[in-house]
Amino acid sequence: MAIERKNPVPSDIEIAQSAELERISDIASGLGIPAGAVEEYGPYKAKIDWRLGGASEKAPRKAKYINVTAISPTPLGEGKTTTTVGLVQGFGKIGKNAVAALRQPSMGPTFGIKGGAAGGGYSQIIPMEDFNLHLTGDIHAVSAAHNLCAAAVDARIYHESRWSDGYFEKMGLSKLNPDPHGVAIGRVVDMNDRVLRHVVTGMGSRADGPLRQSHFDISVASEVMAILALASDMADLRSRLGRMVVAYDTKGNPLTAEDFKVAGAMAALLKDALKPNLLQTLEGQGAFVHTGPFANIAHGNSSVIADRIAVGYADYVVTESGFGSDMGMEKFFDIKCRSSGLVPDAVVLVATVRALKAHGGGPAVTPGKPLPAAYTEENLELLGNGMANLTAHLGIVRRFGIPAVVAINSFPTDTQAEWDLIRDAALKAGASDAVVSRHWALGGEGAADLAEAVEKAAAGKSEFKFLYPLENTLTEKIEKIAGEVYGADGVDFTAAAAETLERLESQGYGKLPICMAKTQYSLSHDPALKGAPRGWRLPVREVRLAAGAGFVYPICGDISTMPGLPSKPAFMNIDVDAEGRISGLF
Amino acid sequence: MAIERKNPVPSDIEIAQSAELERISDIASGLGIPAGAVEEYGPYKAKIDWRLGGASEKAPRKAKYINVTAISPTPLGEGKTTTTVGLVQGFGKIGKNAVAALRQPSMGPTFGIKGGAAGGGYSQIIPMEDFNLHLTGDIHAVSAAHNLCAAAVDARIYHESRWSDGYFEKMGLSKLNPDPHGVAIGRVVDMNDRVLRHVVTGMGSRADGPLRQSHFDISVASEVMAILALASDMADLRSRLGRMVVAYDTKGNPLTAEDFKVAGAMAALLKDALKPNLLQTLEGQGAFVHTGPFANIAHGNSSVIADRIAVGYADYVVTESGFGSDMGMEKFFDIKCRSSGLVPDAVVLVATVRALKAHGGGPAVTPGKPLPAAYTEENLELLGNGMANLTAHLGIVRRFGIPAVVAINSFPTDTQAEWDLIRDAALKAGASDAVVSRHWALGGEGAADLAEAVEKAAAGKSEFKFLYPLENTLTEKIEKIAGEVYGADGVDFTAAAAETLERLESQGYGKLPICMAKTQYSLSHDPALKGAPRGWRLPVREVRLAAGAGFVYPICGDISTMPGLPSKPAFMNIDVDAEGRISGLF
Repeated sequence: MAIERKNPVPSDIEIAQSAELERISDIASGLGIPAGAVEEYGPYKAKIDWRLGGASEKAPRKAKYINVTAISPTPLGEGKTTTTVGLVQGFGKIGKNAVAALRQPSMGPTFGIKGGAAGGGYSQIIPMEDFNLHLTGDIHAVSAAHNLCAAAVDARIYHESRWSDGYFEKMGLSKLNPDPHGVAIGRVVDMNDRVLRHVVTGMGSRADGPLRQSHFDISVASEVMAILALASDMADLRSRLGRMVVAYDTKGNPLTAEDFKVAGAMAALLKDALKPNLLQTLEGQGAFVHTGPFANIAHGNSSVIADRIAVGYADYVVTESGFGSDMGMEKFFDIKCRSSGLVPDAVVLVATVRALKAHGGGPAVTPGKPLPAAYTEENLELLGNGMANLTAHLGIVRRFGIPAVVAINSFPTDTQAEWDLIRDAALKAGASDAVVSRHWALGGEGAADLAEAVEKAAAGKSEFKFLYPLENTLTEKIEKIAGEVYGADGVDFTAAAAETLERLESQGYGKLPICMAKTQYSLSHDPALKGAPRGWRLPVREVRLAAGAGFVYPICGDISTMPGLPSKPAFMNIDVDAEGRISGLF
Repeated sequence: MAIERKNPVPSDIEIAQSAELERISDIASGLGIPAGAVEEYGPYKAKIDWRLGGASEKAPRKAKYINVTAISPTPLGEGKTTTTVGLVQGFGKIGKNAVAALRQPSMGPTFGIKGGAAGGGYSQIIPMEDFNLHLTGDIHAVSAAHNLCAAAVDARIYHESRWSDGYFEKMGLSKLNPDPHGVAIGRVVDMNDRVLRHVVTGMGSRADGPLRQSHFDISVASEVMAILALASDMADLRSRLGRMVVAYDTKGNPLTAEDFKVAGAMAALLKDALKPNLLQTLEGQGAFVHTGPFANIAHGNSSVIADRIAVGYADYVVTESGFGSDMGMEKFFDIKCRSSGLVPDAVVLVATVRALKAHGGGPAVTPGKPLPAAYTEENLELLGNGMANLTAHLGIVRRFGIPAVVAINSFPTDTQAEWDLIRDAALKAGASDAVVSRHWALGGEGAADLAEAVEKAAAGKSEFKFLYPLENTLTEKIEKIAGEVYGADGVDFTAAAAETLERLESQGYGKLPICMAKTQYSLSHDPALKGAPRGWRLPVREVRLAAGAGFVYPICGDISTMPGLPSKPAFMNIDVDAEGRISGLF
């Protein structure tokens, strides 16, 4: 597939629509994936049989396994997905067989402020319209499974309040006594819809009840999404769904989806969603796109199954984790790799002149507003001051025993002196290399240097180690993350949080890993603290359980799980022509 | 494809899973559909390019066009889908090339009381699991498009209350002044979830508003679903979406999805949903499955596009309409055929001994409870008394100038004398023929007689005529349906209904057809009035507008648009094994 590059670079959708796509079955067979394991969904998308990655010990380990993470980003994002795609294309340019493994983006933000999420410029996943809208319906399946469970809980409360013990016995059931104030599951929708953040349900007459205050999250925040991302096969998916704690009874005992007899139907709804999706890069490499758990309240990584498959069919598997190395990468290591059994070989840490200047004290960066001059003109002082953030992130990567390559995602306004400053600081802080990458403007050609640097860094034997053993108490694990990853002086638990931790230990959930829920804009819990904050303590307001996903998530600060639409939302630009061709999706 | 029949007949899912499926691309090419118009979604489902049916004048008219309807059903249903599939299989047995065109069922009821909806016994659409769960995601796409529009309206109310006229002008927008009490769109979810019938949204802080009472419908009740079903091509879909009246401003003027600049994005979300899905019958015929609008508040028919495609590639297209001839069939003729330009050739009216006995005064028939003896033993008196309902339905079909064949959907407890009684009454009432059909137990072999009778009835030239011209006033059209179809003495409009009718006429909506919303259990508005009620008047409580779908729908009686889950819901039986094979879906 050849794509003719233009300068200035056209819009993402113009580039994507000008590409000549290869048939996805050809991409799959090029990787050596058996035809019987490939289900085409139209000519350019396929689902791949999850059985190919079902058991880690059986899957032939072939690939070097690369994680792409970033420094603490600005609200504009620093181009992690674009770099992931660019790096895979760069590997292509140096003659290596590489695939990408990415998250499927939530559809809600596509219509809000964010636009597309399939990479950008000449480093994109195509068809980008499908990538951004529905794909093969996996997020919808997650929503349906989640909402079935939520409906099951409310319906049970209704029927138990209405009918006798004897009536339930006659049906072969016994009462669960769910506490209407103890429901632990809300509802979800894949939409930015602020008015659903806090709702009252069950109004009307008795048969429309129970009357309760409740909430909606965006679908990717569902525990079901985290479960789908971490499941190793169908049986594991089924039993994880069953373990979800979705309510508490009137005595405070946890009630699971299994107790409500709904986990089997939830698994049936997810039978196709368990199969990873295969798409392609603009330069014809395979790209697995599968699952998209939230990166703050969940672990923010694409699926275990996709990666397990991918490592069997490529020399390099490049996978992105959510937000910065303190967030998605730490969870990638301590949660996802622990589930998958896969061992990472190298990390690519994406940095931009823009974000480093912001960490050095630059003015606020706001989506939808023009960038202040500090960001578009050379400013070595701001940049130098911001380098603390880069150094801290490199320290986090080193803590896990993995070599790091810094990818300087270039912008047209950057200067050579600025790049040199970053490179020097990165090498001083222990990076294997630091390379300017021009994949947005030049595709794989612009990332060939980066690919060579990553090849070199990943060549050795991995000395990967987890941050903590599962045997630590929940409190110890939280303190270790706060101290060794975030650089906090300690952790302050509210009384409620401490009580929950004690209860979870006594209920047998103490051996689960930790999935921290905090802001991505700072290494601390406070988005205003830039660079590498020192002399602060991490406040844990609340602790929640995701027993099916298999982690405990402490909440540090305000975490929104339902975005809103802005005053001039992105949907206003989107349209179709008479042939169904989409425009205005950026 | 050969399927070995067993006696007693196994469960639906056992039969479906024992079938050897043909590759769907083979089914498509067998029909002569060009390969370039076929997108496989896995090996056994395909989407067919809507362009094949895009323009009625261009589509080669080839097939006889058969509608399957029924007498007024019991809450158990009388086997209309099963008969539709059986008839197609029956045509196969007599050497004819037939396809089915069916609605996609809502997924919600699958988990409630209803179970599967892909036919039954040896007359089913397969794969039945996919038919019942997600299929290719069209209903999810409808939900997303609908909910995007709902979020857009609430977000606009929020932002207009917060920002100045000048701020909107700077963004190139002007205020619409939507009335928070004039929002005409709720939200939807494809789930039986009673607590969502009446909700309060927008609680929390100001940024989580506006605070309003609102509601959720099940997704198939969305106007977007009706629009998708009636659209003739992408441009028509796009402009219908734009015409949806989703709110009123503070002066009472209608505001459309176009005014909110969201119709283009909605169309983008539906670009694949516009393509009909192709599946297969147990005996290897093609079955188009596309769109599933509610049969009471909407028109209850599968898509115009699927039928337009189907008539170009088969000798017989058999399509089902919702509920009885007073409901789905009348709307099939006056709404769907008016949109499609297709002219029906014959009607199959499904009747059962059970339903006719219920109309004759038999005891109540309740889902989940054993049938009273009156229904399982010969009872010619009850049956004879119920024949008025059959006669009335045959009168309705005759009113449209179309020949009717009565299909007696047989049950093991029926007797020959009962069948004879039905046949005599049917012929007396003007049916072309009346045939006992055993497709449930015997597949196509059991429906070969029915197919022959339908072939004969459809052989002549169609003398089809609409019930009313669009030039009639809305009130005249409603009165004509009530009088000539339902047998009412007249119509009683509430003051509110009369006022709405007047307003709609003055706003230019007076030339739309009527889509009556009433119970399916009686020819009247009162489910308790069995047989052919006489001496009653139809009360119209309220009148609503579906400007995008292109009809006005008067509400007669209580119509629920959000089912609930029963005390022992069907989801409790459903599970998957380690390979992802589904069980317990009936």
